[in-house]
Amino acid sequence: MAEFFDCNPNVLNNLELIEKKMTQAATECGAHVVQTCFHMFSPHGVSGVVIISESHLAIHTWPELGYAAVDLFTCGENCDPKIAYDFLKAAFSSKSGSYSELRRGMLQADTVQKKPFFVGQQVEV
Amino acid sequence: MAEFFDCNPNVLNNLELIEKKMTQAATECGAHVVQTCFHMFSPHGVSGVVIISESHLAIHTWPELGYAAVDLFTCGENCDPKIAYDFLKAAFSSKSGSYSELRRGMLQADTVQKKPFFVGQQVEV
Repeated sequence: MAEFFDCNPNVLNNLELIEKKMTQAATECGAHVVQTCFHMFSPHGVSGVVIISESHLAIHTWPELGYAAVDLFTCGENCDPKIAYDFLKAAFSSKSGSYSELRRGMLQADTVQKKPFFVGQQVEV
Repeated sequence: MAEFFDCNPNVLNNLELIEKKMTQAATECGAHVVQTCFHMFSPHGVSGVVIISESHLAIHTWPELGYAAVDLFTCGENCDPKIAYDFLKAAFSSKSGSYSELRRGMLQADTVQKKPFFVGQQVEV
């Protein structure tokens, strides 16, 4: 979970650039890009997501506040979201930011499906 | 931030259904859907995002574990992400889940741009 303060608002309000930098951040940190989806708000602000094989990166920008909120959701051992954080902090010319890691999906034996799921056995719902 | 355990794997592996339920969850909790973006993984698992005017809802499913990780990222006073959580817990037939709220974007005077940003003054970057 990343916050970027005091960013360059001209970057934060540029959809093409935000999409490019978010996609690069995914690749830089070892992720594999599957799909991207970005939206420009009126009068300003960009929201977007890069779906990666390892989960997703999401961003919301408030150019008028110089602020961007970013999620770097990864799984597996081959991605380092901190690399994406450092990359984006530089890309946004952010003068201060915060980065915190939250672990999730800590499955315990009693919460996991008792029977393994096989695609061939999927039923219509 | 929501976790859903012990879900119906047939729901978690159905892209159309997941997209429909996530979009409904957004509307139910008072959000306005802007764009959706979903991906089916092989051999199983769905990742997707609903971009809303108020930020986004994201999901990753592991049908083989009966597990889904969901982000319900909202801003403003008109959305209640807990409603989306309850809606999705029922939609996934999840027997146990967890829901936690994290506040972010707590801007302080010294981290906000000193000069307001006007779109008309945007410069090329």
